Amino acid sequence: MSGRIATDYEIKDSGNRNMSASYTETELPYVHKVGKPPKQDLLKEIKTTLKETFLSDDPLKPFKDQPRKKKFVLGLQAFFPILSWSRDYSFSKFKGDFIAGCTIASLCIPQDIGYAKLANLLPQYGLYTSFVPPLIYAFMGSSRDIAIGPVAVVSLLLGTMLQNEVDPVKQKHEYLRLAFTATFFAGITQAALGFLRLGFLIDFLSHAAIVGFMGGAAVTIALQQLKGLFGIKNFTKKTDIVSVMRSVINSAHHGWNWQTILIGVSFLIFLLVAKFIGKRNKRLFWVPAIAPLISVIVSTFFVFITHAERHGVNIVRHIEKGINPSSVHEIYFSGPYLTKGFKIGVVAGLIALTEAVAIGRTFASMKDYQLDGNKEMVALGSMNIIGSMTSCYVATGSFSRSAVNYMAGCNTAVSNIVMSMIVMLTLFVITPLFKYTPNAILASIIISAVLGLIDIDAVLLLWKIDKFDFIACMGAFFGVIFVSVEIGLLISVAISFAKILLQVTRPRTALLGKIPRTSVYRNIEQYPGATRVPGVLIIRVDSAIYFSNSNYIKERILRWLTEEEETFKDHPKVEYLIVDMSPVTDIDTSGIHALEELQSSLNKRKVQLVLTNPGQTVLDKLHASHFADHIGEDKIFLTVNDAVLTLAPKMEQA
Amino acid sequence: MSGRIATDYEIKDSGNRNMSASYTETELPYVHKVGKPPKQDLLKEIKTTLKETFLSDDPLKPFKDQPRKKKFVLGLQAFFPILSWSRDYSFSKFKGDFIAGCTIASLCIPQDIGYAKLANLLPQYGLYTSFVPPLIYAFMGSSRDIAIGPVAVVSLLLGTMLQNEVDPVKQKHEYLRLAFTATFFAGITQAALGFLRLGFLIDFLSHAAIVGFMGGAAVTIALQQLKGLFGIKNFTKKTDIVSVMRSVINSAHHGWNWQTILIGVSFLIFLLVAKFIGKRNKRLFWVPAIAPLISVIVSTFFVFITHAERHGVNIVRHIEKGINPSSVHEIYFSGPYLTKGFKIGVVAGLIALTEAVAIGRTFASMKDYQLDGNKEMVALGSMNIIGSMTSCYVATGSFSRSAVNYMAGCNTAVSNIVMSMIVMLTLFVITPLFKYTPNAILASIIISAVLGLIDIDAVLLLWKIDKFDFIACMGAFFGVIFVSVEIGLLISVAISFAKILLQVTRPRTALLGKIPRTSVYRNIEQYPGATRVPGVLIIRVDSAIYFSNSNYIKERILRWLTEEEETFKDHPKVEYLIVDMSPVTDIDTSGIHALEELQSSLNKRKVQLVLTNPGQTVLDKLHASHFADHIGEDKIFLTVNDAVLTLAPKMEQA
Repeated sequence: MSGRIATDYEIKDSGNRNMSASYTETELPYVHKVGKPPKQDLLKEIKTTLKETFLSDDPLKPFKDQPRKKKFVLGLQAFFPILSWSRDYSFSKFKGDFIAGCTIASLCIPQDIGYAKLANLLPQYGLYTSFVPPLIYAFMGSSRDIAIGPVAVVSLLLGTMLQNEVDPVKQKHEYLRLAFTATFFAGITQAALGFLRLGFLIDFLSHAAIVGFMGGAAVTIALQQLKGLFGIKNFTKKTDIVSVMRSVINSAHHGWNWQTILIGVSFLIFLLVAKFIGKRNKRLFWVPAIAPLISVIVSTFFVFITHAERHGVNIVRHIEKGINPSSVHEIYFSGPYLTKGFKIGVVAGLIALTEAVAIGRTFASMKDYQLDGNKEMVALGSMNIIGSMTSCYVATGSFSRSAVNYMAGCNTAVSNIVMSMIVMLTLFVITPLFKYTPNAILASIIISAVLGLIDIDAVLLLWKIDKFDFIACMGAFFGVIFVSVEIGLLISVAISFAKILLQVTRPRTALLGKIPRTSVYRNIEQYPGATRVPGVLIIRVDSAIYFSNSNYIKERILRWLTEEEETFKDHPKVEYLIVDMSPVTDIDTSGIHALEELQSSLNKRKVQLVLTNPGQTVLDKLHASHFADHIGEDKIFLTVNDAVLTLAPKMEQA
Repeated sequence: MSGRIATDYEIKDSGNRNMSASYTETELPYVHKVGKPPKQDLLKEIKTTLKETFLSDDPLKPFKDQPRKKKFVLGLQAFFPILSWSRDYSFSKFKGDFIAGCTIASLCIPQDIGYAKLANLLPQYGLYTSFVPPLIYAFMGSSRDIAIGPVAVVSLLLGTMLQNEVDPVKQKHEYLRLAFTATFFAGITQAALGFLRLGFLIDFLSHAAIVGFMGGAAVTIALQQLKGLFGIKNFTKKTDIVSVMRSVINSAHHGWNWQTILIGVSFLIFLLVAKFIGKRNKRLFWVPAIAPLISVIVSTFFVFITHAERHGVNIVRHIEKGINPSSVHEIYFSGPYLTKGFKIGVVAGLIALTEAVAIGRTFASMKDYQLDGNKEMVALGSMNIIGSMTSCYVATGSFSRSAVNYMAGCNTAVSNIVMSMIVMLTLFVITPLFKYTPNAILASIIISAVLGLIDIDAVLLLWKIDKFDFIACMGAFFGVIFVSVEIGLLISVAISFAKILLQVTRPRTALLGKIPRTSVYRNIEQYPGATRVPGVLIIRVDSAIYFSNSNYIKERILRWLTEEEETFKDHPKVEYLIVDMSPVTDIDTSGIHALEELQSSLNKRKVQLVLTNPGQTVLDKLHASHFADHIGEDKIFLTVNDAVLTLAPKMEQA
């Protein structure tokens, strides 16, 4: 390693002043210049930014350089992935799909009836929602494992928001119409996000907030089921834990029906045992999957022969026979209910989307295939739009049924078609048999289903990894169970945003020291062995410098200097303040202002400002604003080591 | 440089597995371990975060280890900085303050009368606002250069928002009361932000947005003055440029008064010439400063002797004599106007705060003294609260008058006291003399004052440095002039937030290459001389990995890999994917998930994931989540160079 400086690399960049030349005599190892690439085209720059934001997955790439006919086929395939995967479809794949489809059908039928009640709708609407949307999704969706249908959390959310506007008992028809309107706009919202390629917006709901929200919703839903499980007649309409428990306790003397409790609790135990078995032995996954249907059959038969309904056991009584009637004319396209339906639809649609995308991503990464988030949104949106016209309410991917689908060996979305066909047959043929099904069984099924949404492991992990995430999670959880689903959701979103804002306003800065016998400078706090260079203070700024943090960064750097001077009074005076810009990915005009102010403050304290390793964008802006000329190009270095070697060679050896 | 590895540093950290030991044979230079500091206390961690967020300036530091009596004195001085600086006050300082005070008084008196009209208030309220608030500020504020009083933008904003609620002509008294209520809550908002140490919130309004908003407001205010300048009677109440120009053109035939135009335009030319002189020769700064008062005196005298008011020249007519009456009982503390006043107050208070803090910071950095943002807010808030009880409306720091104050050689806030006293004398003695002052003069004065708010240089700089900032600026500007002040403000805030969110969702990633003959790896795009290492792909992630970007980062890294494999088909297969985590300052649970998913995807493609230089927080979380064990501690390196030397020594030499 000699002191030879003029490398090929430097010759290439000969447009810049050769800073290194003056140091040849001092026999320093390579001092390299900071790269100053040719200025980028403005249009190109904007294009790149827009592309990374909206088209980061490059959806038009396959269309490039293709004949027009091929483009049309590709376009059709983009909207209907079934056209591409169905060509490789085989009987062996169908076997897996068929078994999986039957399994999730047996799981979804009792769940559907229960979930419809959560949304204050008649049981058949739950079944309708398991017929049309899965069919549409099978043609348009790209996830192979998701199981589509009504889900607990969205049903509860929809039910709560709808009954705030319309009374589900007194204004039955208006309520139903508003539900379809909301479903329509939920679909529109989802499809619009996908078309406009704004899918990344749902990333703003943090994982931690979702865990808390889902857990809270699960507890709320389980508590609501106490009505059915205990056969309580006068039950509160509120969903917070205080009102519900008061309702339960107040009705303890007269409102509880022991026959109902007996049936409900015994089948709940049966379902939980089945769940436990399925968890212990993954090959017995089908046990918890068919347990609900068995419970329904057994309990229905039991009620039928004992006529328990005459002893106060509530039963389903009636489910409309036949498949989905049209509901095109039921949707409000004008009047005051239009805006209400729109608002409810947007919220429900976003939550449904979040759930579906989370499920889709999880299974896609387990089987290692790519999922196009925006395309998924268009598929989910279309299925809800068509659903709203065929008497369905908001459908999405269900956590529990998708897991069963996956474990039962589904290969493609055909399992959804199979499930959908079985639901259709159920609607045509066997709905009258549900007449004697006790409501307590539906309550037990819902409780055992939603318990899976309470993810204690995830919460423990949050606690272990990130305390702020844990607080966000708990905020959402307690918001849902103590106030309401909407407030819990609001808290989740607010906490998620607060975290982003905090990150942006108060970035970290670190004092760097030299790791002995290397040319590497690292955070002194993290590497206690790293040593300070006398007379030089090296600070790394760990964030882009924007208006939101530029003042803080400036003041924090000055504070580092003051603290250093106060702590080490006997050390040589700090002559150079090196700001390592490696992590500074961008800077805006406020950031440049802050640097200018920093420099003028430092000048007054007789300290020289030195920058190291500014990135391309930052360097461009330092030059555009003439700040680079202002502090002198010889004060900008490629590495901290170069800067120290050049500016303080004596100090370094000290 | 030999291959000796066991340094003191490594012995210190001997708790970790000594990764380097196995490479001694290959004679590599120092391969250092990644620092794994002892786990931080949870409470300490939270305390540090809270402290950096709210108490980053360590306001309690001087109080530490002081006797109780000293603490009390320090506390008083903290609230009333005058107690500390007045002890060093001298006659020579007073000389500067006196001259500056007289100069800004001569500037503020005509401005005050005009600005009060912008807020739809009688002229004396402008003068009242230049009497009490500057006095309070002199005792509590810490800026030495700011000139307090009513300002154009806040007056316009307040006037617009108030007249949306109450008609300023038909409901005169209610309008006045609502104005005081809004002022009261503006003060409360400002003081509360200061007390709660939430001052950093105003940093969320970006510099670019402020430039645009101020420019737009200046144009809007200037257009409003066409009414006075042309003597138009039927003038629109809207502030957008289209309505105003229509108003002006429609009144061209009958509504214009040539005498008014003659007086207005000639004095406007006089003022602009004076301004130009002041700009060309900094020592003649007093020319534009006293020009308005001269205009007022001359034009008033002219109207008085010619009785131009009989020829349709509008005059001020009447200004109440005497100082501020009490308005404590005028503030609405109940009823529907309470909430309206509160809302208007919050908005006006925040804008006033932004302006004052920006001015304070500018001059503090010019004279190099520190300004405590939170303390400033308490001072500004207190002055507006007291102002609202003494018939003042929202006061803040004025750009133009502060600049004059600075140039006239003010030393302390005493110049504000001098100004305040002169305004008081004016109120007592000479208000009747303003009777014949033509409104056209006030219009010219306002136009010439607000033109200074249009900062074309700043806009050009924005264009040069940061295109996104430029767009934000233009958005705010056109929002104000084409729609309304509030919409413009809303656009500014929305754009500022959009920028933050964009930054957080779509962080940059860069492909690194080795700069020849160094051990330094840098962005290949920025340093075209940097070379790829065959079989190794090195990617730097330029942001903290949070829920909002974790999916994007994962997919972007995989896309880099795919692109690389497609572009260099003849190169050796990529075996190692090194993710340089240097700029990754933090990671949350979603980020850990994304890394796990990344690793499983890479495993399926037979590529090994390697991390380099994770920071302290990140490393803690990698360990807490067991991801570090999962990928193996021997896959985490201190530098990219270490990783390449260790994993691909043959490739590196190729």
